[in-house]
Amino acid sequence: MKAEIIAVGTELLIGQITNTNARYISEKLNEYGVSVFFHTVVGDNNGRIKEVLHTALSRSDIVVITGGLGPTEDDLTKEAVCEYLDIRLEIDEDILSSIEEYFKNRNITMVQSNIKQAYVPAGSVVLYNQKGTAPGFFIDHNEKKIVILPGPPVEMEPMFDDYLKKYIAKEATVYSRFINIFGVGESIAEERILDLIHRQSGITLATYANFGQVTIRVTTIAENSAEGEKKLKSTIDELHTRFGNDIYTDEDKSLSEKVAELLCKNSKTICVAESCTGGLVSKMLTDRAGASKFFLGGIVAYSNFFKMIYLSIPGEVLEKHGAVSEAVCRSMAENAVRMTNADIGLSVTGIAGPGGSTAEKPVGTVYIGICSKGTTRVKKCSFNGDRNKIRNMAAAASLDMIRRELL
Amino acid sequence: MKAEIIAVGTELLIGQITNTNARYISEKLNEYGVSVFFHTVVGDNNGRIKEVLHTALSRSDIVVITGGLGPTEDDLTKEAVCEYLDIRLEIDEDILSSIEEYFKNRNITMVQSNIKQAYVPAGSVVLYNQKGTAPGFFIDHNEKKIVILPGPPVEMEPMFDDYLKKYIAKEATVYSRFINIFGVGESIAEERILDLIHRQSGITLATYANFGQVTIRVTTIAENSAEGEKKLKSTIDELHTRFGNDIYTDEDKSLSEKVAELLCKNSKTICVAESCTGGLVSKMLTDRAGASKFFLGGIVAYSNFFKMIYLSIPGEVLEKHGAVSEAVCRSMAENAVRMTNADIGLSVTGIAGPGGSTAEKPVGTVYIGICSKGTTRVKKCSFNGDRNKIRNMAAAASLDMIRRELL
Repeated sequence: MKAEIIAVGTELLIGQITNTNARYISEKLNEYGVSVFFHTVVGDNNGRIKEVLHTALSRSDIVVITGGLGPTEDDLTKEAVCEYLDIRLEIDEDILSSIEEYFKNRNITMVQSNIKQAYVPAGSVVLYNQKGTAPGFFIDHNEKKIVILPGPPVEMEPMFDDYLKKYIAKEATVYSRFINIFGVGESIAEERILDLIHRQSGITLATYANFGQVTIRVTTIAENSAEGEKKLKSTIDELHTRFGNDIYTDEDKSLSEKVAELLCKNSKTICVAESCTGGLVSKMLTDRAGASKFFLGGIVAYSNFFKMIYLSIPGEVLEKHGAVSEAVCRSMAENAVRMTNADIGLSVTGIAGPGGSTAEKPVGTVYIGICSKGTTRVKKCSFNGDRNKIRNMAAAASLDMIRRELL
Repeated sequence: MKAEIIAVGTELLIGQITNTNARYISEKLNEYGVSVFFHTVVGDNNGRIKEVLHTALSRSDIVVITGGLGPTEDDLTKEAVCEYLDIRLEIDEDILSSIEEYFKNRNITMVQSNIKQAYVPAGSVVLYNQKGTAPGFFIDHNEKKIVILPGPPVEMEPMFDDYLKKYIAKEATVYSRFINIFGVGESIAEERILDLIHRQSGITLATYANFGQVTIRVTTIAENSAEGEKKLKSTIDELHTRFGNDIYTDEDKSLSEKVAELLCKNSKTICVAESCTGGLVSKMLTDRAGASKFFLGGIVAYSNFFKMIYLSIPGEVLEKHGAVSEAVCRSMAENAVRMTNADIGLSVTGIAGPGGSTAEKPVGTVYIGICSKGTTRVKKCSFNGDRNKIRNMAAAASLDMIRRELL
């Protein structure tokens, strides 16, 4: 089974956005045992959409098309595909009433253009949209499978996950596991597993890095997940031996998800006192539902004034050591615990830049403190990169410090 | 001038990496007045590289190819292109010695495969690589321009910037402005400008939506930005008349950037008291450097306990009205001001879901309060979508409320 992915949207061709949908769909199709041979991006133009569809259908069994399903005039994917395949568009009363309800619930006037979204290709399978009004479609046409999905990733991804496994034939499946590591750089991680990478065992390993986290993807071909799991077991065990506690999870889970899970499991509460991360650590800890079980709250003590009144850091201490210091970081964590009775106090103070550095404290200097069971530890970190990267690295390192505390 | 971008690399087709090069090159080519009509991704396969090159040369004046220039066996872009164009590869002594030097300087043994990188297409312009060993090429062939660049963005981007402006003729430039709106849905925004969209004036308008924000892109062809600005002026003025204060900026700027700018300009300080957004509003206000001028700090009052001790909300009020209520939201904003003397107190409390809803307060119910100059206003919002979308919509609506307060 050969597949091809077509993204429709002039905003991609002017460089306003990146085609992340192609990456997502490629990864999933590979997991389902379908090889992707081409990606194409084309603008919101009827003629050119038909041109790329013609090429794609001449060389691929499955064509996945994303984008151009919105209510506006330059959304014309559905119309172009139907014209090319000579399929009629007909109104779907279920979709029409769900769109009407969507607008009624939001107390927004529905305009004429929204009705456009209720038209579906005759004979197609309608893929309902949990996150927006544009439905997707699955069309089985002359032994070719054509899938049409909305462009916004937040709508496309759940629709893909909900429906596509069912409609795309599986022969052999690519089975993958993701081993997620914090505390080891990508080159070093790769160097430590070079022998496993070069082994001719039908198991491939690849590393990816993201804000201090390294993921090793371990992949094999298997008929089903039980067989896949069996084939990968010894390799995953070997990775656990080599990386130990630096592995924060061998499931498909983020660091903040893992930390939330550990806090719940250990019935621990936490209070965050953060400065340079400006609320990011609190935001990450509350990303998923259920955070009220462990997250009491956070103080975003961005100014010295806030550090003084909300975290009781004496003015003299700030004056003497500076806000970015081991002493201030320690007091922030300790006072967060003292004032809220949280089991864990987590503090972050640093220089995210680009300004604010000194000779002894360059941009990227960040102190992270943790106070738990009457003991406080402070770690000094030096991160590289721009403001966004430094803030994300500091937040990830903070989460990892909570994780290690709970192990 | 029509251009097309081809990325070569199986790692893109298995979803291991995203084709960010296409976005970068598209944005730059548009700046240089070259329209991009297609992006294509193809694997490391000689036949298929030639196939997509054939299609590209049949419909575009400029073809930019990235990737597949490394030293290994599956790097075969240069070879496939030269075979297709019937151009000989010849050794370039300058490149050979620079590669030898590269390895000598790093004390690494040069292997035979590295010599492959010293072969260049006869008659091409060699583009030197400041960040790696693989050179790029510019080939002028039968009135078509073919550019070959290395795949890693860190090598490709400086090479593109150093050379391409020189080799890609400028005739006309696409000039765009972005009008950013908050408070009007995408369909309604489009309906209000349908006459401008349908006008045959050489000015195109397109709308995009993101977390409650709508962007109208207004584009024309001009010799330079001064002419572009002049051609777009009356359309932009018209949009200002139609959308008024719902336009938060007509520059290429985010809502949080605009709010930060207004706070600075008006010399106002702010304190944020947020619950369901969990730190996101504070994080957005501190995304850019210089936030210390206006952002005193934030209280992430996720638990009732935090609302009581840090925002002095009486237990009885929480009990009587519930944490998600007009009364609690009002007190949060007022007490944020009272306790910090900030010019503006901003509060957010709501149900981000998926749990926690009641019959009267469904998921997506969010109260946003603002206290300024002794007056407090509270707005009740109903957002739709998943937890992430509701949190982002609530944060954007909060920023917009600050913006309107400062107008």
